Amino acid sequence: MLRTHSAGQLRAADAGDTVTLAGWVARRRDHGGVIFVDLRDSTGVCQVVFRSEEVADRAHRLRNEFCVAITGVVDRRPEGSENPNLASGEIEIDVVSFEVLGESAALPFQLDDEVGEEARLRHRYLDLRREGPGSALRLRSRVNAAARSVMARHDFVEIETPTLTRSTPEGARDFLVPARLQPGTFYALPQSPQLFKQLLMVAGMEKYYQLARCYRDEDFRADRQPEFTQLDVEMSFVDQDDVIAIAEEILTDVWATAGFTISTPIPRMTYDEAMRRYGSDKPDLRFDIELVECTEFFADTPFRVFKAPYVGAVVMKGGASQPRRQLDAWQEWAKQRGAKGLAYILVGQDGELGGPVAKNLSESERAGVAAHVGAEPGDCIFFGAGAVKSTRALLGAARGEIADKLGLIDPEKWAFTWVVDAPMFEPADDATAAGDVAVGSGAWTAVHHAFTSPKPEHLDSFDTDPGSALAYAYDIVCNGNEIGGGSIRIHRKDVQERVFGVMGISQDEAQEKFGFLLDAFSYGAPPHGGIAFGWDRICALLAGTESIRDVIAFPKSGGGVDPLTDAPAAITPQQRKESGIDATPAQRGQGTQSEATAAE
Amino acid sequence: MLRTHSAGQLRAADAGDTVTLAGWVARRRDHGGVIFVDLRDSTGVCQVVFRSEEVADRAHRLRNEFCVAITGVVDRRPEGSENPNLASGEIEIDVVSFEVLGESAALPFQLDDEVGEEARLRHRYLDLRREGPGSALRLRSRVNAAARSVMARHDFVEIETPTLTRSTPEGARDFLVPARLQPGTFYALPQSPQLFKQLLMVAGMEKYYQLARCYRDEDFRADRQPEFTQLDVEMSFVDQDDVIAIAEEILTDVWATAGFTISTPIPRMTYDEAMRRYGSDKPDLRFDIELVECTEFFADTPFRVFKAPYVGAVVMKGGASQPRRQLDAWQEWAKQRGAKGLAYILVGQDGELGGPVAKNLSESERAGVAAHVGAEPGDCIFFGAGAVKSTRALLGAARGEIADKLGLIDPEKWAFTWVVDAPMFEPADDATAAGDVAVGSGAWTAVHHAFTSPKPEHLDSFDTDPGSALAYAYDIVCNGNEIGGGSIRIHRKDVQERVFGVMGISQDEAQEKFGFLLDAFSYGAPPHGGIAFGWDRICALLAGTESIRDVIAFPKSGGGVDPLTDAPAAITPQQRKESGIDATPAQRGQGTQSEATAAE
Repeated sequence: MLRTHSAGQLRAADAGDTVTLAGWVARRRDHGGVIFVDLRDSTGVCQVVFRSEEVADRAHRLRNEFCVAITGVVDRRPEGSENPNLASGEIEIDVVSFEVLGESAALPFQLDDEVGEEARLRHRYLDLRREGPGSALRLRSRVNAAARSVMARHDFVEIETPTLTRSTPEGARDFLVPARLQPGTFYALPQSPQLFKQLLMVAGMEKYYQLARCYRDEDFRADRQPEFTQLDVEMSFVDQDDVIAIAEEILTDVWATAGFTISTPIPRMTYDEAMRRYGSDKPDLRFDIELVECTEFFADTPFRVFKAPYVGAVVMKGGASQPRRQLDAWQEWAKQRGAKGLAYILVGQDGELGGPVAKNLSESERAGVAAHVGAEPGDCIFFGAGAVKSTRALLGAARGEIADKLGLIDPEKWAFTWVVDAPMFEPADDATAAGDVAVGSGAWTAVHHAFTSPKPEHLDSFDTDPGSALAYAYDIVCNGNEIGGGSIRIHRKDVQERVFGVMGISQDEAQEKFGFLLDAFSYGAPPHGGIAFGWDRICALLAGTESIRDVIAFPKSGGGVDPLTDAPAAITPQQRKESGIDATPAQRGQGTQSEATAAE
Repeated sequence: MLRTHSAGQLRAADAGDTVTLAGWVARRRDHGGVIFVDLRDSTGVCQVVFRSEEVADRAHRLRNEFCVAITGVVDRRPEGSENPNLASGEIEIDVVSFEVLGESAALPFQLDDEVGEEARLRHRYLDLRREGPGSALRLRSRVNAAARSVMARHDFVEIETPTLTRSTPEGARDFLVPARLQPGTFYALPQSPQLFKQLLMVAGMEKYYQLARCYRDEDFRADRQPEFTQLDVEMSFVDQDDVIAIAEEILTDVWATAGFTISTPIPRMTYDEAMRRYGSDKPDLRFDIELVECTEFFADTPFRVFKAPYVGAVVMKGGASQPRRQLDAWQEWAKQRGAKGLAYILVGQDGELGGPVAKNLSESERAGVAAHVGAEPGDCIFFGAGAVKSTRALLGAARGEIADKLGLIDPEKWAFTWVVDAPMFEPADDATAAGDVAVGSGAWTAVHHAFTSPKPEHLDSFDTDPGSALAYAYDIVCNGNEIGGGSIRIHRKDVQERVFGVMGISQDEAQEKFGFLLDAFSYGAPPHGGIAFGWDRICALLAGTESIRDVIAFPKSGGGVDPLTDAPAAITPQQRKESGIDATPAQRGQGTQSEATAAE
């Protein structure tokens, strides 16, 4: 090693020892010809002093982010000049000799500057030298180890599934890879290892896991990356409680790695309850604002707007004192979400109702509404009215916005919940409206995915009454983020075929796309289920950062571009020709495959 | 859980307990109406007996590979009917009730049949139910854990590098991925994370590892897969000995996981010595046949064939008694390797020399040759003469063939060696002749890769005398397989540019392809080095199998086809259109990227 010690590990007890450190110049100060350098390595920072003439002279050349190795004697710092904020703050190194291992040109930004993301990613190798970004990756590594340790404790088998595979229909666009040896055909990068992990269960592996890279070719809205990682888990001979138990053990140990304690069992609520009380299937439970159902209450209302399939409300404590411009801003906010506006009633300190809605209500409604929704003098009541799902979603978003404005969200708090008993299917139109891709050509599409089992009590009826069928599925939600989800899978060919039927996937199409899975189910398939955790999001939560880009070593920027390597790039005509992109695919039969095998 | 116990864990001490097992019917026997089933799960096999009328009747329906759950009482087997070959052989389960969880259609093959690879891969979910294939994957999982444990012990940070990245020039063809959002441009799948791990060192991560998926679009000759895994390791502030020490710790622990002891330190030999003594840079040292250099010995030979830049020999003990047809077969063998033949001398029991070569030699040569090469009466001496490299390679292959024929290879033995001090460059023609792709357009190409540092003593001269420069590189060889390789890297921009220069990579080309790496080297790059292990090969060696396909869950067959999912497949016209494959790439400038970022 080019060093004997690490910068962060030296203490007063080391005084008198001669050591060699290697790292980076974090800061350089010149005190009357004596050069002080904060030397940084992966363990921390240590002050090194260039006192003697022969080293001080050369040390004048040092600039921030030079990479150096220094040899010197550990000295206790003079009394009064210790730095209690630094683990090595009691000592400094009196440099005897040093070597510049790597010079640094003028930096594009100083490490303690605030810089934009584009610059950070373009110079990611400098960005990661900073405390926050570097420690986020180190935390992620420890988080991985914690999860693997739970998996090992329960005899899970870590299995790698292929990256070059066949298109699977998981609702997003596939990335494609031209297959040069089968010109004109393409591999697809997996959106998840779903089918492979189910095949591994049929194969009798019983307990599988993988920190699996997944790929979705989406328009990188919000905080999405074209490649992302999930902790992928699958088990045989289990029901929902078994998967949830393992999942809670993983979460407990992973959160503990970052210094947090989770109390288990994590509470469960049904999808229906989540939608009803919070207007979301991933409710943020760090604050207790809830939606109040008012449909019944306004059953006979004279107010035209509230004559709707659903009317609901959320209360903003103290919201009656909001200035007019803030109330107008709420209307804008609602319009950006596709609503017409956000009706509201201001409850005066005297109980008198204000705002444009109140006067449209009947007298008894005016008299009872505050009590019905639990509003008190000084509060503001926001209303939504319209189709059930979209109106609840609007009010659900409003409760988050209210909590945010009122500072009700404790950033130190972890609020977990399982959301269970989701519907198995939703109308395909709803999915399309929500921006998802409806799989299949039928009127119904799967809420989770096509391989999710119905709950046992819906096994007989799910295809005759798809709208009522509940899925044997469970999502884990933390602070309003869906951080994982899973289900008990279908393991019977007949059931799987019936589900495809509901989704309008024809038998031919099913056979062409999933024939291998249906075939596998014919050979003694075990009951099985599993879960997948959104690993980037979990790591981002633990690192205390908003963006998953902060816990990915080399994330893509907008448009799928890597500002560092400038990928993607044009290819040469020769690459294009060789790749077979432009060839017409040959019919590949049994024969051809055998030949290919033989040729090997 | 749908069971209370595992089949393999039940013992005599459990007698009397009521248990529920779940697994597969491995074998079913009917003894006078009583049905005996070997029930298999991931832990082993247990005999279950359907005695009572109500269960025996239904049990007649059971067929091999039905998936079942049975509940019954653990009974000691009647004396004399214990099975000492089975861990659970002292007991059986007297079935009280059972449930068929998954029926099985007639199997495409019985699990104990010998079947071809095509059928095995097409029904991989059945293949993996077999003892050998299933345990190979389980072993691999434990091997991963062992390696990760070494990495954690030394504070390595596990970091995932991107899959969607930019083409890197590592001597093989890249797989390409059309980038829909940047129409007409392509990502490349990484041939290794080489550049990213070097960037992580510049980023101050200091110790990095990853079980990294890598991709090479090659013609699947021999035992290659389009996607494969390497254990990828990189460290800062190290020299060769540091990397070798960590590597030996990994190997020791990984081999121990499979029950084998390695003695360390592993011996090292130079590349030159390996080529000289074994005719290979990955010598199989399980047997001690060596090449004997005879160039000097035949300096004045009258035999035209031996007037060559290099003459060498290998001795086959007892080979003088090979029948004529076997000696002819050796000629065929040599011709298939591109040689003209394989000259030989048979040393008779009386010391008399036989074979066609002997009579061409001078008298003194005849008198001295056996002693020179260490041959004794009854041996056969094979000769090679010609260009140094190719002739040694031929003799190196011959020594393996001889060892094989003579049964000298102990299959239980592990023979490791480091091969160090390889040349930094080789003539580009040699690389092309060997089937590699020469990177750059120069007369020289890198033996390891373009980022390998010269040994310190060649730092000044490597570009003026490329043929003599040694690389600061090390390969680890086990039983004739190169199972890993690494190097100390270049961390100086000027040195890197000089290496590109030797390889005929112009400054423009270097800047376009590796500008980001050269830039990174400008900002205080630390000295660094690392290693990558061929993980599939290591797992195959430990599993005792010839083919890496046996340690990959879903390997590709010849031609890159997955016989199970039938990937790759044709895409739809819509997919093609959306992918942007056929678009002309737009010039992407700073502006466009910023816009893209802003749009996010």
